[in-house]
Amino acid sequence: MENIFDQIIQHISIHVPLTESEQQVIIGYLTTRRIKKRQFLVSEGEHCRTEHFIAKGCLRSYYVDEKGKEYLLRFATENYWITDLNSFTNNVPSTQFIEALEDSEVICITRQALDCLLIDLPKLHKYFMLIYRNAIINNYDRIQQNFSLPALERYRNFQKKYPQLEQRVPRYMIASYLGITPEFLSKLSAQK
Amino acid sequence: MENIFDQIIQHISIHVPLTESEQQVIIGYLTTRRIKKRQFLVSEGEHCRTEHFIAKGCLRSYYVDEKGKEYLLRFATENYWITDLNSFTNNVPSTQFIEALEDSEVICITRQALDCLLIDLPKLHKYFMLIYRNAIINNYDRIQQNFSLPALERYRNFQKKYPQLEQRVPRYMIASYLGITPEFLSKLSAQK
Repeated sequence: MENIFDQIIQHISIHVPLTESEQQVIIGYLTTRRIKKRQFLVSEGEHCRTEHFIAKGCLRSYYVDEKGKEYLLRFATENYWITDLNSFTNNVPSTQFIEALEDSEVICITRQALDCLLIDLPKLHKYFMLIYRNAIINNYDRIQQNFSLPALERYRNFQKKYPQLEQRVPRYMIASYLGITPEFLSKLSAQK
Repeated sequence: MENIFDQIIQHISIHVPLTESEQQVIIGYLTTRRIKKRQFLVSEGEHCRTEHFIAKGCLRSYYVDEKGKEYLLRFATENYWITDLNSFTNNVPSTQFIEALEDSEVICITRQALDCLLIDLPKLHKYFMLIYRNAIINNYDRIQQNFSLPALERYRNFQKKYPQLEQRVPRYMIASYLGITPEFLSKLSAQK
């Protein structure tokens, strides 16, 4: 049976080659957590003390305003990291919820463990630099699309960028991600 | 007279201690560029081949939709980096404009030079990892504020986060950043 940690090791190795012993160092800092559909990995108000690499499953992060309205921040599936980065980095209460949309399995690293790991293996800074850079590029891409593209084009781009995701998450969440109503999304998806 | 490169060396040193010879290695990869008020560092459609650290001045990045409407992405002043990160990283045409709002002086590094620098001094991955992480946190903070905070609070937070910036950039750009009309911003700024 494949070890769950093989997946994260493979993902890191795409960006930073690792020796066998370096792989073992990394694994020594990791833990795993199973999380059932509709359970929360992070809730607003609590300190988010771990970063999570998704080995299996699908999660979303969202924000709830004072009136109780939800705003979808992002979806994350296999091989993506998810956390409330501000809470994790600056040790402040989380402003987000992170919820499993399927039974999921995540690989966890605490802030303290990550700090130690980066001291033990400084070459991993490169990995996180690249991961974070991609996150920035994705954020700006989404912001610019929301500014200016018609909903149909945003929807088509979403389908291209996240194939299969539409089959894995409720439709109203995709509508929320695209900034449109579920009814309007139904109309769009009926169009060829 | 202080050398312009001292400023970037100081900024990097906050995050990553540097020896004298490491400082010289970094400086060897840098160039400088003066840019007059209202001139463009980057224009939409061109390949953005350099990252820019602002030694002096103030710039903005913005996006223009098909109807010609401008959307302000961010402001950047001394000690911030600015570029179209997608264009810079993935060698695709820029989708943004980056314009000087004051006579400015930026320190430039090309993509190729940055790649070589990171091979020469791998410890700098840590610096960029931290810079990018802060950028993500700032992006999410702005997104969440735009979702839910009333305009007056967003304006007060803007003033707190970027003291003096209000005196340096045209009012209509701040309104654009906050997602409100210039007239509404005038009303807000008249409130105590």
